[in-house]
Amino acid sequence: MTDLTGAKGVYVIAPTAFHDDGRVDEASNDRLTDFFVESGATGITVLGQMGEAPKLDQEEGIAIASRMIKRAGIPIIVGVSAPGFAAMKSLTAAVMDAGAAGVMIAPPNTLRTDDQIVNYYAQAVEAIGPDVPFVIQDYPLTFSVVMTPAVIRRIVQAHASCVMLKHEDWPGLEKISALRGFEKDGSMKRISILCGNGGLFLDFECERGADGAMTGYAFPDMLADVVRLQAEGRRDAAHDLFDAHLPLVRYEQQQGVGLAVRKYVLKRRGVLASDAQRRPGAGLTATARAEVDYLLSRVARFDKRAELGAPKAA
Amino acid sequence: MTDLTGAKGVYVIAPTAFHDDGRVDEASNDRLTDFFVESGATGITVLGQMGEAPKLDQEEGIAIASRMIKRAGIPIIVGVSAPGFAAMKSLTAAVMDAGAAGVMIAPPNTLRTDDQIVNYYAQAVEAIGPDVPFVIQDYPLTFSVVMTPAVIRRIVQAHASCVMLKHEDWPGLEKISALRGFEKDGSMKRISILCGNGGLFLDFECERGADGAMTGYAFPDMLADVVRLQAEGRRDAAHDLFDAHLPLVRYEQQQGVGLAVRKYVLKRRGVLASDAQRRPGAGLTATARAEVDYLLSRVARFDKRAELGAPKAA
Amino acid sequence: MTDLTGAKGVYVIAPTAFHDDGRVDEASNDRLTDFFVESGATGITVLGQMGEAPKLDQEEGIAIASRMIKRAGIPIIVGVSAPGFAAMKSLTAAVMDAGAAGVMIAPPNTLRTDDQIVNYYAQAVEAIGPDVPFVIQDYPLTFSVVMTPAVIRRIVQAHASCVMLKHEDWPGLEKISALRGFEKDGSMKRISILCGNGGLFLDFECERGADGAMTGYAFPDMLADVVRLQAEGRRDAAHDLFDAHLPLVRYEQQQGVGLAVRKYVLKRRGVLASDAQRRPGAGLTATARAEVDYLLSRVARFDKRAELGAPKAA
Amino acid sequence: MTDLTGAKGVYVIAPTAFHDDGRVDEASNDRLTDFFVESGATGITVLGQMGEAPKLDQEEGIAIASRMIKRAGIPIIVGVSAPGFAAMKSLTAAVMDAGAAGVMIAPPNTLRTDDQIVNYYAQAVEAIGPDVPFVIQDYPLTFSVVMTPAVIRRIVQAHASCVMLKHEDWPGLEKISALRGFEKDGSMKRISILCGNGGLFLDFECERGADGAMTGYAFPDMLADVVRLQAEGRRDAAHDLFDAHLPLVRYEQQQGVGLAVRKYVLKRRGVLASDAQRRPGAGLTATARAEVDYLLSRVARFDKRAELGAPKAA
Repeated sequence: MTDLTGAKGVYVIAPTAFHDDGRVDEASNDRLTDFFVESGATGITVLGQMGEAPKLDQEEGIAIASRMIKRAGIPIIVGVSAPGFAAMKSLTAAVMDAGAAGVMIAPPNTLRTDDQIVNYYAQAVEAIGPDVPFVIQDYPLTFSVVMTPAVIRRIVQAHASCVMLKHEDWPGLEKISALRGFEKDGSMKRISILCGNGGLFLDFECERGADGAMTGYAFPDMLADVVRLQAEGRRDAAHDLFDAHLPLVRYEQQQGVGLAVRKYVLKRRGVLASDAQRRPGAGLTATARAEVDYLLSRVARFDKRAELGAPKAA
Repeated sequence: MTDLTGAKGVYVIAPTAFHDDGRVDEASNDRLTDFFVESGATGITVLGQMGEAPKLDQEEGIAIASRMIKRAGIPIIVGVSAPGFAAMKSLTAAVMDAGAAGVMIAPPNTLRTDDQIVNYYAQAVEAIGPDVPFVIQDYPLTFSVVMTPAVIRRIVQAHASCVMLKHEDWPGLEKISALRGFEKDGSMKRISILCGNGGLFLDFECERGADGAMTGYAFPDMLADVVRLQAEGRRDAAHDLFDAHLPLVRYEQQQGVGLAVRKYVLKRRGVLASDAQRRPGAGLTATARAEVDYLLSRVARFDKRAELGAPKAA
Repeated sequence: MTDLTGAKGVYVIAPTAFHDDGRVDEASNDRLTDFFVESGATGITVLGQMGEAPKLDQEEGIAIASRMIKRAGIPIIVGVSAPGFAAMKSLTAAVMDAGAAGVMIAPPNTLRTDDQIVNYYAQAVEAIGPDVPFVIQDYPLTFSVVMTPAVIRRIVQAHASCVMLKHEDWPGLEKISALRGFEKDGSMKRISILCGNGGLFLDFECERGADGAMTGYAFPDMLADVVRLQAEGRRDAAHDLFDAHLPLVRYEQQQGVGLAVRKYVLKRRGVLASDAQRRPGAGLTATARAEVDYLLSRVARFDKRAELGAPKAA
Repeated sequence: MTDLTGAKGVYVIAPTAFHDDGRVDEASNDRLTDFFVESGATGITVLGQMGEAPKLDQEEGIAIASRMIKRAGIPIIVGVSAPGFAAMKSLTAAVMDAGAAGVMIAPPNTLRTDDQIVNYYAQAVEAIGPDVPFVIQDYPLTFSVVMTPAVIRRIVQAHASCVMLKHEDWPGLEKISALRGFEKDGSMKRISILCGNGGLFLDFECERGADGAMTGYAFPDMLADVVRLQAEGRRDAAHDLFDAHLPLVRYEQQQGVGLAVRKYVLKRRGVLASDAQRRPGAGLTATARAEVDYLLSRVARFDKRAELGAPKAA
């Protein structure tokens, strides 16, 4: 089994491809898988919020994850957050059987105190079993659950199977420094830290000690390059590339709108056949699409991968 | 099919009986069903929060609901609240096939604006189908979603299949008056209003126009009597009985603790074999159990049904 | 100076009396003060939420508190919660100069983690000074801030000037037991614990180790009797009196409505000249007033203090 | 009096300058005022969250606002959000007397329903008087209050004195389009829309119909240029300038950290003598300062105003 504590690079958050009528589009999901691998992804995360997981029934979700696991050849992490431990347990068992590298668990938005958060993860580990590698998803903006570095350390130390942090606190740079400091002073074991938030701070997150990104920006190839350039010590080059994309990164990182932008760009890049979301889901207005096209044309001045020509008439 | 818009009396919120080791206890669930019917319940609601629904996997949930539907001979409403419409749709289809009278849907705690709430129910109806009778669960204390009477009216008027309100806003007396006022002025069609909150305001809710209770207090026979006495115009008698139980009603209506109290009393009444909750779940301390026993002994001075003798040593 | 760590009995939460036109009614405020003392209150808390403090400008607030301090002859605690430490500091200085026994501080509803809560109280102490006795207000239902017993202990141990807990967590019985347990095992110094929540659990709170009540129920004389009876070991008598009032206690303890009920009853008891709230504030409907009158008549069967005759036509 | 409904350009959100020991630094505040005017600001907003208003007592706040009003010669808007209407009323009266152009009011974070929001503004107008021009602050990320375009329209139409929206919903581009659409279809009167959120979307907000920015980015001169370039139809030039600053804009727009970054840059630009915040307030770590310096050096390649040389040793 992959040791995720040493995971580096880019774990792409995969969207789920649908046909315009809402059926799962397996061909596009396969193309997505191949595209992520070719883009330099070192792993993929499926069935997250961005993957429209709550709109899939459990069989569909397991089928999508299993197909991707077989095809990808890189570690797949599966989102198993659920309102109850029964569903979390059965989904985890199914995807681990299918070959997943681990699961990702977000805290329910009713948790408040430090102890409640720590206890929740203890209960989750009891449910999924102590041998299943798991990722803490720390995303206060969406979940309203605030984990201090010390709380994360308590969870990491309590469970050998806690292997990774999906870091998307905001602001979060000092949190990375604090956690890496815990590792240095010996009070916390080494885990992988991959950053989310659409990549909005990836440039500095790498410098603070993050191992890379776990996010769904429609140019995972750019994310992979930035992580690589930073690893090679080519700081200015990393920032130059990052900054060229930042206007679009920022545009895509709008809550609720982000997935529509992402699917639109992936369609324009030829990966998805349709940018449809399963119902209910909001699309982009014509004005928003034109804004994205304009941003793509500006990114293309620096990065030819964004040179996509004129969009087809809708 | 039962026309739930005219539902009256007491729809008991059913807990789920487990063995001490966490397995579903079918014999106790059967006894529960019989006990509710004998207590004068006019309906039962299963798979709610109080039923530990999130700790059941979907097959278990459907099995419990189906068994109760077959056995009860009174209308069964099934809680189908879910983080996504896929799960809501499949659960609804299964339980309606099994003979449920309708489903209950709570709003997710991320909704804020009036339109978001109205749209959510429209999407839910699209998911479950326009022919499935549904109940709005209005419980701001737990869900953090505040529905004005006007928002409830918008939902009721938009969907012929909206048949009932589980009213557990707090405070909520004026809300009942407002909704019944809408019916009188012709701006809203008639729906059934059954009240929750552990029955804490049932005495006055009936006087304001509610049709009865939908809650899980461990003496549903008392709730049924209060609703009946109020319907017969015997106000003082209704309050006398209610007030005798109020100290225990109040004790049971503590968030988080309530279910443990309820199961403990149902065990003492001989209905449940075990008061265990499936993990994770908190039990009562010895002090709390003694407090409940003391309250039972005081209720028994007025209502012999609470005369349960000394508890067995644990 | 009074040592509040040993405070027992009833600290009444004082409403602020206004004329119908919104001006402060000093004569009624004086009558309130006298009434509380005669009712057996051992202290009074002013300028809390229930005192409509946010509708008073700072001069008005200081004037009301100072007048009460001079008149009462029992310890007065002043609510100084504020959106910033500048206002908290200046109000505290003014009322301590005027002879207040201490101040009460509620946490702002943006706090989440244990450390945030502990740090907030450290900053507050820095602002008001380490010599000012202060009360922690622990009221999650209203403030959305959840303090574990361990967090309360951290605050108590960090500040010699932390003398009291206004306990209104709900459910909260086990919290009292936990805190008294900390005192017994020597990990926390002794503080006074006075309970709020309208008195809804006062019967058992006393048994769990609380020193009494800090709440505004319109019969503080009943609260004082219950605390006294429990202190004398007359458990059944305490519950008998408490239970007789419980239907009204429960009715008054409705969020938002409670103050209107309280002022209405205090007017009916001849203490307030008007039950007006300063704008904006909601009054009682005619139906609600009739419900309160009915409840009073029922309480009066047991407790003659509630025998108020027929209300005057409005 | 200025008609703020036609306000355009940049209203800078002013920080408050303090000496290292926490005293108000009047000389720096004067320099700030002059700097904003020279930077092309068309107005200034004082006593907002970013101005550390809650750490000022009321006299300090009024003094700072009054001094700025006298000195600036451009319209000054004063933040008067308060936990109660008494404080809001007295602060408003004082600053309007001193010559403020209007006040800004944020909704308290307890509001949920559409009606609650609309009623709150009606009560605020009743408190401050119908002749005081006011600005709605729409900032869900911080206040947890979500206003639909229709709710904003209700407030605008109900009050002739509602003259401006501080728009900082996120995402918020479609909201601007919706509001301008209301103006076009005649259902809402014209108001000024100035955008916050640190300027993160200013490039497109202008294109959607916003009149400019109301935010505190430490290069208000850049914000003014972007608004001007967009007004002149020089879209690419506007985006080129904006994009050059975006990495720093993004860095500064971190909640909680933002003010420290802003003050640090304003100190480096020679405007503030100290970047101290009044206690309690967090500073920047050495790593964060170095990150800001690096970002400044990169901005300077395009915009010479960011060429600030090496920072002095701390």
